[in-house]
Amino acid sequence: MTDTSPLTLLGLGAMGSALASAWLTAGHDLTVWNRTPGRTAPHAARGAVVATDVADAVAANGLVVACLLDDRSVRATLDGVDLTGKDLVNLTTSSPGEARALAEWATARGARFLDGGIMAVPPMIGTPGAYVFYSGSAEAFDAHRDTLAVPAATNYVGEDPGFAALHDVALLSAMTGMFAGVTHAFALVRKENIPPRDLAGLLSGYLTAMTGYAHGIAEHLATGDYTAGVTSNLAMMTQGNATLLRTAEEQGVSPELLTPFMRLMRQRLDDGHGDEGTTGVVDLLLR
Amino acid sequence: MTDTSPLTLLGLGAMGSALASAWLTAGHDLTVWNRTPGRTAPHAARGAVVATDVADAVAANGLVVACLLDDRSVRATLDGVDLTGKDLVNLTTSSPGEARALAEWATARGARFLDGGIMAVPPMIGTPGAYVFYSGSAEAFDAHRDTLAVPAATNYVGEDPGFAALHDVALLSAMTGMFAGVTHAFALVRKENIPPRDLAGLLSGYLTAMTGYAHGIAEHLATGDYTAGVTSNLAMMTQGNATLLRTAEEQGVSPELLTPFMRLMRQRLDDGHGDEGTTGVVDLLLR
Repeated sequence: MTDTSPLTLLGLGAMGSALASAWLTAGHDLTVWNRTPGRTAPHAARGAVVATDVADAVAANGLVVACLLDDRSVRATLDGVDLTGKDLVNLTTSSPGEARALAEWATARGARFLDGGIMAVPPMIGTPGAYVFYSGSAEAFDAHRDTLAVPAATNYVGEDPGFAALHDVALLSAMTGMFAGVTHAFALVRKENIPPRDLAGLLSGYLTAMTGYAHGIAEHLATGDYTAGVTSNLAMMTQGNATLLRTAEEQGVSPELLTPFMRLMRQRLDDGHGDEGTTGVVDLLLR
Repeated sequence: MTDTSPLTLLGLGAMGSALASAWLTAGHDLTVWNRTPGRTAPHAARGAVVATDVADAVAANGLVVACLLDDRSVRATLDGVDLTGKDLVNLTTSSPGEARALAEWATARGARFLDGGIMAVPPMIGTPGAYVFYSGSAEAFDAHRDTLAVPAATNYVGEDPGFAALHDVALLSAMTGMFAGVTHAFALVRKENIPPRDLAGLLSGYLTAMTGYAHGIAEHLATGDYTAGVTSNLAMMTQGNATLLRTAEEQGVSPELLTPFMRLMRQRLDDGHGDEGTTGVVDLLLR
């Protein structure tokens, strides 16, 4: 038997609309609300119930999913609405601190709270590969895991309502660094007769092979031994960095995307950790 | 019939020793030379001919591979040595400019020149996954491709002797960015009850999925249309960046590894390119 439990969705931006489509396609009874009513029509045409008042939308179902602009919009939208006995799932982009504060706010109003961090852009919703981190009330997650799994796979990462956002941001931050590195790489060859598509193939293969680096860092942090299994230590790497910088200079490329990490590697080396890999830089970032 | 052509290897540091072992294992007649003679013994025990004079080492074979400390060491080592008719393959870490200058220098002395960029650390030599970019004389590469393929797979990237180093540095630069991002990610969860090994698994999976970004950038650069296929544009990304920075602040983590890229994204947005992805940052890096 397929679970087609009813639910309410607040917010029909690009992401909210993608979520609504996924639930409607799966046959769920969906009540939708959006601050500006124009965006509800296509979902109404597919069978969604449109609530013009947010209190009615929340009253309609036990499971209420919010996918709004930002944390402030969630507070403003739900201000004064009765949340007693509701399961509130917040898929609005938030920081861990915002998610924790919202959890407290919602719990004080009688709701169970789950926060979610969506690891996908809207076109990926409903396709394999998309997933959502959830954290907060384990009871709420267990009660709705099948419904929540409709638009994207779920990964529950603990009772701390900030953990979903923290995992989300950790992955996006790592991605940002990777994108910065890739951007620098393309700049290096920009004026050369090297097809960008050829470089892309090489980059994606090499970076994929090098993601194992994360496991090495994890072992160091888990054991406290920052030298275990290091095949290229800080002394070698800072020498390699000099070649990277010299090449950037030759190719007329600003090194600004690489220098902050190199500076911290140098600092760690100067502090006497030349036999370690880069793991010590993690500690240098902590205030 | 297996090719076991004779060759000379100059330099028995960690990488040179790994190369020597691979060629000896494959049955090649190998002549080795090292500035300090102590490191030759284990290779001599396995059948390598040890030359105490670099001129003798070079005279011994038509193919001469150099794997020395740096560009200056190569010049100093080969200064005054007769290179007429030799095929010189430089596997010493170099910048593209250094490789181009060395090619000119070697060619003027009657040698054919190949430069190589090794995409591996010494323990990877002789294992699948290791490979070397080569560029320079196509004739020299064709003559020795089987021998060169013994320690690591080969990827010939063109006649420009600087291209091997340029490809090498481009990939290492991208990797440096990825490592910086991963470092920031681990710092974010350092004080939380999140096992580093769990985060590592999530990071390597997510980053692998996101390497496709390089293909998107390549399409933009190849076509000149920086908006094609963009699912998360600069306007959205800079908003996302605010969440990343707020989270870093909450977690007590310095944002210094992420801010330079975010600053350039912001600059590109302010320049009126909010509908593009990040490709325009490539151009901002060029002086």
